[in-house]
Amino acid sequence: MKVLGAIEAGGTKFVYGLGLEDGTILERASFPTTTPEETMKQVFDYFSGKPVEAIGIGSFGPIDPVKGSPTYGYVTTTPKPHWGGFNLVGAVSEVLNVPIGFDTDVNGAALGEYTWGAAQELDSCLYITVGTGIGAGAVVGGRLIHGLSHPEMGHIFVRRHPEDRYEGFCPYHGDCLEGLAAGPAIGKRWGKPAAELEPGHPAWEMEAHYLAHALMNYVLILSPQKIVMGGGVMKQSQLFPLIRSKLQELLNGYVSHAALAADIESYVVPPQLGDNAGLAGAVGLAKLALAGV
Amino acid sequence: MKVLGAIEAGGTKFVYGLGLEDGTILERASFPTTTPEETMKQVFDYFSGKPVEAIGIGSFGPIDPVKGSPTYGYVTTTPKPHWGGFNLVGAVSEVLNVPIGFDTDVNGAALGEYTWGAAQELDSCLYITVGTGIGAGAVVGGRLIHGLSHPEMGHIFVRRHPEDRYEGFCPYHGDCLEGLAAGPAIGKRWGKPAAELEPGHPAWEMEAHYLAHALMNYVLILSPQKIVMGGGVMKQSQLFPLIRSKLQELLNGYVSHAALAADIESYVVPPQLGDNAGLAGAVGLAKLALAGV
Repeated sequence: MKVLGAIEAGGTKFVYGLGLEDGTILERASFPTTTPEETMKQVFDYFSGKPVEAIGIGSFGPIDPVKGSPTYGYVTTTPKPHWGGFNLVGAVSEVLNVPIGFDTDVNGAALGEYTWGAAQELDSCLYITVGTGIGAGAVVGGRLIHGLSHPEMGHIFVRRHPEDRYEGFCPYHGDCLEGLAAGPAIGKRWGKPAAELEPGHPAWEMEAHYLAHALMNYVLILSPQKIVMGGGVMKQSQLFPLIRSKLQELLNGYVSHAALAADIESYVVPPQLGDNAGLAGAVGLAKLALAGV
Repeated sequence: MKVLGAIEAGGTKFVYGLGLEDGTILERASFPTTTPEETMKQVFDYFSGKPVEAIGIGSFGPIDPVKGSPTYGYVTTTPKPHWGGFNLVGAVSEVLNVPIGFDTDVNGAALGEYTWGAAQELDSCLYITVGTGIGAGAVVGGRLIHGLSHPEMGHIFVRRHPEDRYEGFCPYHGDCLEGLAAGPAIGKRWGKPAAELEPGHPAWEMEAHYLAHALMNYVLILSPQKIVMGGGVMKQSQLFPLIRSKLQELLNGYVSHAALAADIESYVVPPQLGDNAGLAGAVGLAKLALAGV
């Protein structure tokens, strides 16, 4: 089987490694995300001399994933210092002369779960990560969602919880989903880091309110066959039953399907690939690039 | 060119007719939607002896469009009397022995605009109708969106307008988008039919608030390359500039694309196929059925 290179370009750290066409991760390494020059040097040193046949990059965003666009392969309007306008695909292609697949980190993770994980028997799935930010990607009819650019599902507006007085921290939208429900919002609202709040803390009911509202929109707009929830905040496993029951309450039986009724526990699930979802997704992007997709 | 049959099965009236593979509508007729028996008799009388090679049906919903499902082809949980659980595809296939394409009316209209209308040069588009109800369909990567079932985008929750005291009329969700912004909501909120409110009435600013919030979610979740807005309420052409500017205000520059900036007037548009969008969409569904898609 061919060896594929994978880069999960995160805003906090870059994870990179080697995988096989069947999704097996052979090895992984990581480096904190500093400047593009320093970070990319680590990546190139790692891949130097390794016989990869294609590279997949799942990147933090916003990015330009539209082939043929003048800024294809760039990180675009990110507020992250040094990275706005950085030509990530261009930098990799100068050093590694192989096909390159490029998409958002969350589209990559959705592809990984669709190909080898929780949604491998299905035609569609949505992957959402809830951590220092909120992002989501989706596969519909076997393909990753693209259009004008890529989805930015973490920034939708959701209805505020009636008891929430926190103003939200999104620099663009204030109290959008990310502004109200990403990890930093929980910390700022309750005065200590999310990881230090006990499982019975009211923070989790409020968090579930926001995430269930987001899931309701995703279900009504995309109708995914599975929703996979990952990221640091979702390590709080008490969130899953809270989110599932609130989602059912919000939908109120309108979409008639067992997945949203008796089978809800297998509809809203953690990543089957665990912490390898992102890297496996990048392997999946490499595989698509190799196939010329 | 082959002659195709088209049925736009609406909750108020059935429109049906003949079209060609290039989207030309040859003729159309309609009948008020009464009981399934009476309505379908009109449809069958119309098609009797007509040499159609396939039939496309764009239907009001919810429906089951999932091939292989035991209730494929049914109208499912509609509150409309007599139609819940009606096997629409089954009824048509008993009388007309040709391939049948079946989808929601709004997925059909999205397909029509994608194939022959406002989005014919693109890979994706969203069609939303705002009338007695609100529904939307979308083409992503050249394909209509399906998954668990079909999208029900009219029922998403959006943020309430701060001055709105109307409770919403959706029997499932109260003040979801449809409950707050479909035609009947405008009539109930302001005490007279939407069509009688002058263009400068505050109703339209409020309506634009709700529709722009919906469009923001659609943009962030689906990233469509074009948004086509049809239906009776959208005949109020003063809504278009209001919706466009509110959408820009909400996105606040986060998604960096000319379509959402200088080119917004050609991004949020009326149907190019006008009142034929639904019927042309059904022709498109017939064409897909003929191709075995």
